[in-house]
Amino acid sequence: MAVNLATPKAAALVPVDGIELGWAEAGIRKSGRKDVLVVRIAQGSSVAGVFTQNRFAAAPVMVCREVLASRAEVRALLINTGNANAGTGAAGILAARESCEALAQLIGCDANQVLPFSTGVIMEPLATDRLIAGLPQAIGRLDRGHWLQAAETIMTTDTVPKAVSRSVEIGATRVTITGIAKGAGMIRPNMATMLGFIATDAAIEPDVLKRMTQQACEFSFNRITIDGDTSTNDSFVVIATGQARARDESRTERASESWLASFAAALNEVALELAQAIVRDGEGATKFIEVRVEEASSEKEARQIAYAVAHSPLVKTAFFASDPNLGRILAAVGYAGVDDLNPALVQMHLDDVYVVRDGGRDPNYREDDGQRVMQKSEIVVRLNLGRGAAAASVWTTDFSHDYVSINADYRS
Amino acid sequence: MAVNLATPKAAALVPVDGIELGWAEAGIRKSGRKDVLVVRIAQGSSVAGVFTQNRFAAAPVMVCREVLASRAEVRALLINTGNANAGTGAAGILAARESCEALAQLIGCDANQVLPFSTGVIMEPLATDRLIAGLPQAIGRLDRGHWLQAAETIMTTDTVPKAVSRSVEIGATRVTITGIAKGAGMIRPNMATMLGFIATDAAIEPDVLKRMTQQACEFSFNRITIDGDTSTNDSFVVIATGQARARDESRTERASESWLASFAAALNEVALELAQAIVRDGEGATKFIEVRVEEASSEKEARQIAYAVAHSPLVKTAFFASDPNLGRILAAVGYAGVDDLNPALVQMHLDDVYVVRDGGRDPNYREDDGQRVMQKSEIVVRLNLGRGAAAASVWTTDFSHDYVSINADYRS
Repeated sequence: MAVNLATPKAAALVPVDGIELGWAEAGIRKSGRKDVLVVRIAQGSSVAGVFTQNRFAAAPVMVCREVLASRAEVRALLINTGNANAGTGAAGILAARESCEALAQLIGCDANQVLPFSTGVIMEPLATDRLIAGLPQAIGRLDRGHWLQAAETIMTTDTVPKAVSRSVEIGATRVTITGIAKGAGMIRPNMATMLGFIATDAAIEPDVLKRMTQQACEFSFNRITIDGDTSTNDSFVVIATGQARARDESRTERASESWLASFAAALNEVALELAQAIVRDGEGATKFIEVRVEEASSEKEARQIAYAVAHSPLVKTAFFASDPNLGRILAAVGYAGVDDLNPALVQMHLDDVYVVRDGGRDPNYREDDGQRVMQKSEIVVRLNLGRGAAAASVWTTDFSHDYVSINADYRS
Repeated sequence: MAVNLATPKAAALVPVDGIELGWAEAGIRKSGRKDVLVVRIAQGSSVAGVFTQNRFAAAPVMVCREVLASRAEVRALLINTGNANAGTGAAGILAARESCEALAQLIGCDANQVLPFSTGVIMEPLATDRLIAGLPQAIGRLDRGHWLQAAETIMTTDTVPKAVSRSVEIGATRVTITGIAKGAGMIRPNMATMLGFIATDAAIEPDVLKRMTQQACEFSFNRITIDGDTSTNDSFVVIATGQARARDESRTERASESWLASFAAALNEVALELAQAIVRDGEGATKFIEVRVEEASSEKEARQIAYAVAHSPLVKTAFFASDPNLGRILAAVGYAGVDDLNPALVQMHLDDVYVVRDGGRDPNYREDDGQRVMQKSEIVVRLNLGRGAAAASVWTTDFSHDYVSINADYRS
């Protein structure tokens, strides 16, 4: 079902020095599937995270925020699927803390050095007993080569595990960046997607890493949408273990602005590829669509219009049907809330096909050309507003029968 | 498919003195179906209208705005289905004007006294030749008793014609209010729904009628949503012919504040019933859902949260499945954009079932009780925010396979 997205090869996922991963089948919701992931982080690492802006933030999100605000040195991540531990009140916070405490005791650190993450059904109590009982199994499997299994463990309605790896030479240092993420519904991140974890062996100061994490998130996870529903559990974490070694000297090199810029570019690339993988594997997706808005008066305005198009059920069902019913896109542009938009300045391209010229259908537009593009599995909708120099892209999917089936059946 | 909505009986639709309706099968998009409606309005009537806030407002909407702004006395409405005449630029305006001109010549008035309306596919040229060729047939059928046929003529993906009639004694005058409307997709009105027309024989000054029309719209058509897509063609028009006669004297009576308040209440009732009929016949609808937000700090905030819930594809698919996966509602409340919302103060009822107490699942909540309500065809979701005294309701539908089918096939 996923659009041009294959399962990554284990061999293509480069381990990151200082990171080990292990999983358990703890039976959180269903038995016989990987549902608990432990990530052990070496001493001396920097960790940064961004989290959902949903006011009903899940208990683990609240605990993560506290831990990161305390500037404690994070030594482990504890992730479960099958239950979101959201809408669970004080009992949910307690459940998250107890789980962290149990892991801390087993690996020899403080409970305040463990970040918890949950994904699954909202408003049901988390089975901490089963989660905690599964920890020894996960710890027994801790290994630096387990990135693919980690990606499999955090899947919910995902059909393909999502993992991306890059090794780049920056200056005198070879740096590895490897990350995993999961979707596949309730995806309209506002800070980060459901769950995304990236690790690098680069050495990055915590404050710099925090800035880079926010930046990477802003142009990747914060630019995708499947159904417009912002999750209660969105979390995106970047870990920098600092274990990459320069070929001769290095520590001075890291501080340079240009070194950091090169690293940030590589980090953004990994984040974007993971975010796009979530869209490609969006619930029921049959198409991968980029909505690009150009010549907007601000980036915020460009995003606003791109999201209106990307969220329109009518636009999304037209893409599903490969039907160039493209007036629906204009309608969405028109209701996006840009009050002084001048329709007569709006241009629209579908890939290379000029569809809307000066606010109306281009005289040279032929339905056959629209049809040809609509039948592709990857499509770019480009809208020029004629208002300024700002631009933004949002990536999304179509809306299919399978989306309805998946979400009508999710709990059963 | 419509939820508890039957075809109105022709006998239950009370004619309005001063209003005649006639239709044609003009073959605008497909042949052999009613697709042009002419409404002839007696001299001396007041007419008011509210229109879409979509920036890509259709050509007929722009012409309507001009006519009403010029304070010309409106003598006819000309409505076609099959083509929205939107996203059609200057040629579209010309097409709307030409159609009005043709009708004006046939019924003996000025082109500037005709209001045009269109609904159908966006961004395709309107076949004015076929529309104009159909006018004599429509005029030949003009009759005060044709309200049901009029409701049938304006249908697109509607499965049931929508018409409502009330006769009320206000003071010494018996007043009739009869209206028609159509949906059934691209419904998230921002000023009015796709097309709604109400006529009354009450005598109401134009400025007063304008205020009443806006008010009636605000709490009816502006409180419904099917798919969150605001149409390019939303139009809601109220006609007051002033032909109702008091039992003895009357004209002075009309001016009284209490008389007008009683009339406005009856008008609002008709508008709300038409608006709710649109929801009941929403594309693919299997359920009719009221989302009521109480104890909000402002009505705007209450609406904002109600719409977030009403638009969430995850909430809507859960309703379709009759699955009490109610955490999805909390997630939507949380991302609605009320930044200082305190989750611990939020309460939620599903009909009479207390689901969320103080931000988490009520300890006494039983899944069976949620299940029982979810299986009903009409459901009230009541959310109390604990922030103030404002409240608002929004009416919506679930999200079904049929919605996808209808919109994937709409043009074929």
